[in-house]
Amino acid sequence: MVTSMDIGVWILLFLVGFIHSSESKYIAYNTTSTIVPGKLNVHLVPHTHDDVGWLKTIDQYYVGSNNSIQGACVQNVLDSLIPALLADKNRKFIYVEQAFFQRWWREQSEVVQKTVKQLVNSGQLEFINGGMCMHDEAATHYIDMIDQTTLGHRFIKEEFGVTPRIGWQIDPFGHSAVQAYLLGAEVGFDSLFFARIDYQDRAKRKDEKSLEVVWQGSKSFGSSSQIFSGAFPENYEPPSNFYFEVNDDSPIVQDDINLFDYNVPERVNEFVSAALSQANITRTNHIMWTMGTDFKYQYAETWFRQLDKFIHYVNQDGRVHALYSTPSIYTDAKHAANEAWPIKTDDYFPYADRVNGYWTGYFTSRPALKGYVRWTSGYYLAARQLEYFKGKSASGPNTDSLADALAIAQHHDAVSGTSKQHVANDYAKRLSIGYTEAEKTVAASLACLTEGATKTGCGTPQVKFQQCPLLNISYCPASEVNFSDGKNLVVVVYNPLGWKREDVIRIPVANEKVVVRDSNGKKVQSQLLPIPDAFLGLRNYHAAAYLGISPSVNPKYWLAFSAIVPPLGFSTYYVSNAKKSAYKSGSQSDGFEVGLGNLKLIYSGKEGKLTQYINRKRKVKESLEQTYKYYPSYGDDGTITAQASGAYIFRPNGSSFPIKPNGKSPLTVLRGPIVHEVHQKINSWIYQTTRLVKGKEHVEVEFIVGPIPIDDGVGKEIATEIKTNLTSSKTFYTDSNGRDFIERVRDYRKDWNLEVNQPVAGNYYPINHGIYLKDKSKEFSVLVDRSVGGSSILDGQVELMVHRRLLNDDSRGVAEALNETVCVSDKCTGLTVLGKYYFRIDPIGEGARWRRTFGQEIYSPLLLAFTESEGNWGDSHVTTFSGIDSSYSLPENVAVITLQDLGDGNVLLRLAHLYEIGEDIHLSIKSSIELKKVFRDKQINKITEVNLSANQERAEMEKKRLVWQVKGSSREPEVSRGGPVDPEKLIVELSPMEIRTFVINFNH
Amino acid sequence: MVTSMDIGVWILLFLVGFIHSSESKYIAYNTTSTIVPGKLNVHLVPHTHDDVGWLKTIDQYYVGSNNSIQGACVQNVLDSLIPALLADKNRKFIYVEQAFFQRWWREQSEVVQKTVKQLVNSGQLEFINGGMCMHDEAATHYIDMIDQTTLGHRFIKEEFGVTPRIGWQIDPFGHSAVQAYLLGAEVGFDSLFFARIDYQDRAKRKDEKSLEVVWQGSKSFGSSSQIFSGAFPENYEPPSNFYFEVNDDSPIVQDDINLFDYNVPERVNEFVSAALSQANITRTNHIMWTMGTDFKYQYAETWFRQLDKFIHYVNQDGRVHALYSTPSIYTDAKHAANEAWPIKTDDYFPYADRVNGYWTGYFTSRPALKGYVRWTSGYYLAARQLEYFKGKSASGPNTDSLADALAIAQHHDAVSGTSKQHVANDYAKRLSIGYTEAEKTVAASLACLTEGATKTGCGTPQVKFQQCPLLNISYCPASEVNFSDGKNLVVVVYNPLGWKREDVIRIPVANEKVVVRDSNGKKVQSQLLPIPDAFLGLRNYHAAAYLGISPSVNPKYWLAFSAIVPPLGFSTYYVSNAKKSAYKSGSQSDGFEVGLGNLKLIYSGKEGKLTQYINRKRKVKESLEQTYKYYPSYGDDGTITAQASGAYIFRPNGSSFPIKPNGKSPLTVLRGPIVHEVHQKINSWIYQTTRLVKGKEHVEVEFIVGPIPIDDGVGKEIATEIKTNLTSSKTFYTDSNGRDFIERVRDYRKDWNLEVNQPVAGNYYPINHGIYLKDKSKEFSVLVDRSVGGSSILDGQVELMVHRRLLNDDSRGVAEALNETVCVSDKCTGLTVLGKYYFRIDPIGEGARWRRTFGQEIYSPLLLAFTESEGNWGDSHVTTFSGIDSSYSLPENVAVITLQDLGDGNVLLRLAHLYEIGEDIHLSIKSSIELKKVFRDKQINKITEVNLSANQERAEMEKKRLVWQVKGSSREPEVSRGGPVDPEKLIVELSPMEIRTFVINFNH
Repeated sequence: MVTSMDIGVWILLFLVGFIHSSESKYIAYNTTSTIVPGKLNVHLVPHTHDDVGWLKTIDQYYVGSNNSIQGACVQNVLDSLIPALLADKNRKFIYVEQAFFQRWWREQSEVVQKTVKQLVNSGQLEFINGGMCMHDEAATHYIDMIDQTTLGHRFIKEEFGVTPRIGWQIDPFGHSAVQAYLLGAEVGFDSLFFARIDYQDRAKRKDEKSLEVVWQGSKSFGSSSQIFSGAFPENYEPPSNFYFEVNDDSPIVQDDINLFDYNVPERVNEFVSAALSQANITRTNHIMWTMGTDFKYQYAETWFRQLDKFIHYVNQDGRVHALYSTPSIYTDAKHAANEAWPIKTDDYFPYADRVNGYWTGYFTSRPALKGYVRWTSGYYLAARQLEYFKGKSASGPNTDSLADALAIAQHHDAVSGTSKQHVANDYAKRLSIGYTEAEKTVAASLACLTEGATKTGCGTPQVKFQQCPLLNISYCPASEVNFSDGKNLVVVVYNPLGWKREDVIRIPVANEKVVVRDSNGKKVQSQLLPIPDAFLGLRNYHAAAYLGISPSVNPKYWLAFSAIVPPLGFSTYYVSNAKKSAYKSGSQSDGFEVGLGNLKLIYSGKEGKLTQYINRKRKVKESLEQTYKYYPSYGDDGTITAQASGAYIFRPNGSSFPIKPNGKSPLTVLRGPIVHEVHQKINSWIYQTTRLVKGKEHVEVEFIVGPIPIDDGVGKEIATEIKTNLTSSKTFYTDSNGRDFIERVRDYRKDWNLEVNQPVAGNYYPINHGIYLKDKSKEFSVLVDRSVGGSSILDGQVELMVHRRLLNDDSRGVAEALNETVCVSDKCTGLTVLGKYYFRIDPIGEGARWRRTFGQEIYSPLLLAFTESEGNWGDSHVTTFSGIDSSYSLPENVAVITLQDLGDGNVLLRLAHLYEIGEDIHLSIKSSIELKKVFRDKQINKITEVNLSANQERAEMEKKRLVWQVKGSSREPEVSRGGPVDPEKLIVELSPMEIRTFVINFNH
Repeated sequence: MVTSMDIGVWILLFLVGFIHSSESKYIAYNTTSTIVPGKLNVHLVPHTHDDVGWLKTIDQYYVGSNNSIQGACVQNVLDSLIPALLADKNRKFIYVEQAFFQRWWREQSEVVQKTVKQLVNSGQLEFINGGMCMHDEAATHYIDMIDQTTLGHRFIKEEFGVTPRIGWQIDPFGHSAVQAYLLGAEVGFDSLFFARIDYQDRAKRKDEKSLEVVWQGSKSFGSSSQIFSGAFPENYEPPSNFYFEVNDDSPIVQDDINLFDYNVPERVNEFVSAALSQANITRTNHIMWTMGTDFKYQYAETWFRQLDKFIHYVNQDGRVHALYSTPSIYTDAKHAANEAWPIKTDDYFPYADRVNGYWTGYFTSRPALKGYVRWTSGYYLAARQLEYFKGKSASGPNTDSLADALAIAQHHDAVSGTSKQHVANDYAKRLSIGYTEAEKTVAASLACLTEGATKTGCGTPQVKFQQCPLLNISYCPASEVNFSDGKNLVVVVYNPLGWKREDVIRIPVANEKVVVRDSNGKKVQSQLLPIPDAFLGLRNYHAAAYLGISPSVNPKYWLAFSAIVPPLGFSTYYVSNAKKSAYKSGSQSDGFEVGLGNLKLIYSGKEGKLTQYINRKRKVKESLEQTYKYYPSYGDDGTITAQASGAYIFRPNGSSFPIKPNGKSPLTVLRGPIVHEVHQKINSWIYQTTRLVKGKEHVEVEFIVGPIPIDDGVGKEIATEIKTNLTSSKTFYTDSNGRDFIERVRDYRKDWNLEVNQPVAGNYYPINHGIYLKDKSKEFSVLVDRSVGGSSILDGQVELMVHRRLLNDDSRGVAEALNETVCVSDKCTGLTVLGKYYFRIDPIGEGARWRRTFGQEIYSPLLLAFTESEGNWGDSHVTTFSGIDSSYSLPENVAVITLQDLGDGNVLLRLAHLYEIGEDIHLSIKSSIELKKVFRDKQINKITEVNLSANQERAEMEKKRLVWQVKGSSREPEVSRGGPVDPEKLIVELSPMEIRTFVINFNH
């Protein structure tokens, strides 16, 4: 053969072996989808990973607009998939993200819908994971995870009659215990697959062939909630050189002997070699190849054309066996292999993909969005209850669009804070729209209930309730009215929890001459607190930024009063004109104490700082310091920027710097009968209120942080820390998605010998609910109002990262620095974050009660609705209401996490036990809920216990769920679970951590 | 509405007009394909432009390999097209390049083939242009254009029963008269569309609404070969922002009101505005949008999905009317508009796309490939004749693969020289493979004919003929044998022309003791010429480079002798051992004359240069100088490189530099009875032989140019020039694709006032056949052996660019510098080009005969085949053969340009009159050919005159072809054409420039 092909003079090539005479023609490829025993089976799983928003918004991804940012169009994927599957019945595909699928589905003709149903029926198209999105696992609350999964699963069930079998969390950045046992096993999944685990962990697991394990995520449920779980060897993409998207440059299989570059033998060899290499790190003779990646299969045929050929020629070759497969088929094959698998407990956090690449920044990224999601989540829970009381309206307003928006917001680039800015805006816009509709639903329901119209049905209620979603920035036009004209402000306070509750209400008022009365007309103790400039500035700036208005009224005070509200019910309070000012100014002195009851905080006035925490009743006395600090981002000082901090990655520059209070501004102390507050302006961009409320034995800290200054060219990550003297021995506990607490040990991993590269970032964990630590005598707990990253970097210390402002991208794809701003008239300033956290010190063994029961109150704050009344409101309106029997209250270890009118005549009820096994001596016990009292006026016709995502009967799920053998496992004692519900007695038992889901049909 | 969407604290957006309650659903788009009178009709023509090789090879483009160079896969286009067309019967698509379509077609299942036939039948899929490729129009010979078009058109006819109606030359870089009248009108096309015309011309035509014209390309045929021709307003792409390939970033039509970014009104407005803007420069209320571009529709649905929506919503809007269309529908609409169109004559050369962007470099780019294509083309013509004599073998060897290779080589990035190097290599490889098979066919046919076996059929002939395709570099193992062992070398000389011919044969021999005898055993005059070192170096280097061998024999001499060969037949000559050396050395002196007959060249020995041309018989005596010069490329001196010279563009650096002969090396003159040669080693990289042959009255110049030195960092373009004293008044004539001659005037364009930017590059024209100029008394003609660029930059002067070596890319997409090299063992040197040109000076009016009749001999050289014989060859072999009646000869103004066994029992015959009207007083007349004598031994059963591409009967074509009105045209006198062929007499008449094509069926 001649190598040089240049044409100098006329050339002549005598090509050896050139076959010209054999006509090429149609080849019918043999695309088996059966497993061959005794051979290495390569399960080819065609898939696309379609982020429900990331670089583009979900709608942009769906329709394929904004392609200059990223070429991606989910419509192409689904459109092109159908003919590709029809072309060969062996071809298979899995589809994951229901938010996209539903968009597509509703645009299809009946003919296409029928075809797709057949493809689903035959197993060619399989839905896996099946939630609206592939939710994040670090910054998501378990209630949101359940809701978004239920939304997707029920759609699939209703349209196709099928239930997804497989968890498919291939992209989230670390994996939670709650995902494994709750959103996995309890949903009924037979396996769970993912890609992102720590690189050190991965290396060891490859060595030990333990990428695939049986994961037991729950201490309370033990082996009853295990799931087979596989981490992919590298990522969720094909082996290198096996990418076949339009325009991809992997070598195609050229099998037309009439054309040049015939390469079947080379490609078969590459296939076999990649398969054998994976087989070397995998147990059993089944390996899975994830044939696809982000937004691929835009023209599905390009992949299937090549996969057909590989299956055909690789099987002709015979060294390994290739087949079209799905994770279900793969799971069944693994199960059939009768192997005992290594066990895995706890979770896969934090995730690092390389030495300095700890994905722990995103635990805090976009703290305002995270706060908005959490607040909306709590609102949605309450709104569904109120919608249920009224009866759901199919034509709206209803809570459906909020359900959708919240579901999408759980995506692993949404609440995680790792999307581009315009996409984050889109999530917020959707939440806002959803909220607005839910707000109408709530207002209508409350109107009905106050008008006493629920039993007879509620046509057009007269009362117009207002709500104040911007109450957090003290913006509430409804409460800022002028009472001097004789009007009463009616405040309806709704409690979504199952137990009676007393809480302080706090609303801005324009006037100091106010009085609060309860529904009996009895004067209620109240307190006025002057609104500091810091809050007023926040209020006015954001009213301009978000509403485009300059509020005409500037409220001068917060009015605080205690409300007492029945379970799943409301109370009514009236605010009206008083003869004289209710405001009493406070006092302060060097070295002072604040606190209205058992709990006192001692301040050193000279230094202006908190020094001691004392709860006399509980005999707790602890030195304590609370400060702010910042981590400068790596490389921003002009040195190398190999790995910057960014939306995903927390990469501090080695050291942290304390943020010292400005010496000049002294503490301001506000004292009154309801609340004591210590106001501190730490510096020009940090303002903090420390609050002690009458009757509560915890400290509430409200902070305003931002705009973080960057004029020095250095990105900063702001943490607050509380130092105590507890000897916590490197150990602390953080929640998993707001549910189970998991033990963390500083600079240590249970699964491998940790090489410590990042002593701060590598010890950060996601905190959705709280963090605590303990020593022999005390527990120190901190609860949060949204997801944040946090750690205990020193013994006795807890830190929370509350805000981040960064100047570089961290090279994980988002291609933007996380530098959030807020703009008014095109002038933008760095984002300010307003948030709260709560802390408390208890004697050892007594902290759980506060963390769990009060924790639930943080998630479900009282819902306020306002209206004005001239006459006596109570004469013509219901002022006190409880959705359940007035003699009844749910136990304080149980929450109604779902009470939802399904709109089809059924109601979805989900009850959650709030305590883990052994967590609290009194509350970590089996509880009973009497449904007859919960549904006091209704008769239950049928009650069906279903799985967590409510797409199948629980019994059926348990019957068919695969049971896996575990290597060297000693069977644990039987786990406690509530027994079946007797349809006569209708009592639901809940064991620790149990969540039970019911579809209930009522007699009408 | 709120503009800022950042989330500072929790936000709330009250979106005005957000529609959430209306369910989106399946929309059935109204995709009309009818024309609406009285409205502006926007003809949307979905198309893909699939280069038959450019940045990737044709096979790489087809299968979609090598995507790292360019994401392109024609298989995707055609695969995805079928379901897209089936989805809506109004959707339409045109497909152009049959080389791709045939690859795809033969891989399809019968089911798909049946579906495609239905789509073609219904007009949803229309083949236009229909040749194997979209051939180049500058560097292609008309015979190749006809052949490649015929190959495509007959395939379409056979498989689908349809005939393409439209010429679609949308990418070639300038447009030829032959394309318009011959490959357009004479093929039966109703219109011709293209995109690339001079930017100055385009501007004027937009102003005057004359982008669409009636093009009358032939002087000889006048209005009988007109064609409606449209130049697109900008290019062959959609209006900007209307690109819809997968991942394209034009805004899609977002019409789902349930999603964000609904944009139907904006997109409709953009559509209407683009349409109106085009209507402003277009006559009639029909405009065409070319919806596609290079290798688009990889997932056809992406385009159709958007086009469906545009048609639906634009027509709902109603300001303009959009429809799915094809160029046929558009053409019919234009015709129906009853408009009179501006006339256009001549051609659209040269093409400039901007001030310094003259696409005249490619006229010469890759001169070796151009030479190889031309030589192979001539060989193919002869090989088909010989294949016909023997009878075509379906199972091979046959000429089919050469037909394919040659067809592909006509592509506008193939012979044009504008592909990447590896693609140019691919074209050459294909030609080589095709040649090798054709060579076997020729050898077998000659063996049959010499064995006298044709009448009885030819089984397995005994004689093994060798041929010498590398004879041009003096490499011919067959002739380099040792005659001293008593063997005779049998030389069979085949003449593919219709007239008897005498020509000098020239073969390398190893021995000086040789004698030549004719088939009667009579000694033939011969001459030995020593082979200069320059040729031997070339021979040995390229034998190593292309064959990987070092020839064992070094021939010392060329043996030259005159052969006389009958029409379409052969003679036989024997070379054998002689007693004594036949070599006689020549002589030279200061101031000498060379020439064997009427023509003499006078050299000034002192300066070593040609000074005078004298033909005493013709009374021509002309001072004459022939030299070489080079154009340095713009910017290579380190100045700005805004526009470099490259594969496409000729951008000289303002000046040219003479290449002076090295003073030291004197001329070498070789004189003998057959030929006189003057050898000049101009410098280390230019060697030239000037040759005068016995009995011929022209000068033959053979040059070896290269490797062009680039060690000074300057790219160079090498031209040879001949200066005479003719007062040519800026005027010269160049051929159109080797057929008609067109008048060129320096620094002038007939169609607009030329602004001269590039006084050299802007005056270059493609030369396929020849260039001439004249004054009142003389004509000076130059003929070429391949396509080159050339001009007359000064009065009396002609220059030809013979070679180019460039160091920069010219930014037209190929992204490589045109820097060809030849490598031996990984050591590469710049490409050397060996070529010939011929010149002659005639009294005015007498030049055409030489240009036409001798010109045809250049295209069709004598074909040589060699074998060895020990006994008396003539005793057992046919030594003289004519395919036609031995008493008959075709007139010298007619060539058999196709004589081909179609393999289906029919023969394709194409006869071409070689003269234009008025070109020669004796030969520009109607001629007659007696088919009975041409097919002397056969009986014609049926003769059908067909159109040029042989896919329909000529009469039918003429009947249905559209006739167009021309603005202000005065009807010319009736054009002369040959009359119908009487089936009894079987005489074919040919008028000047007429080409007539027949399918002939013989009685067997």
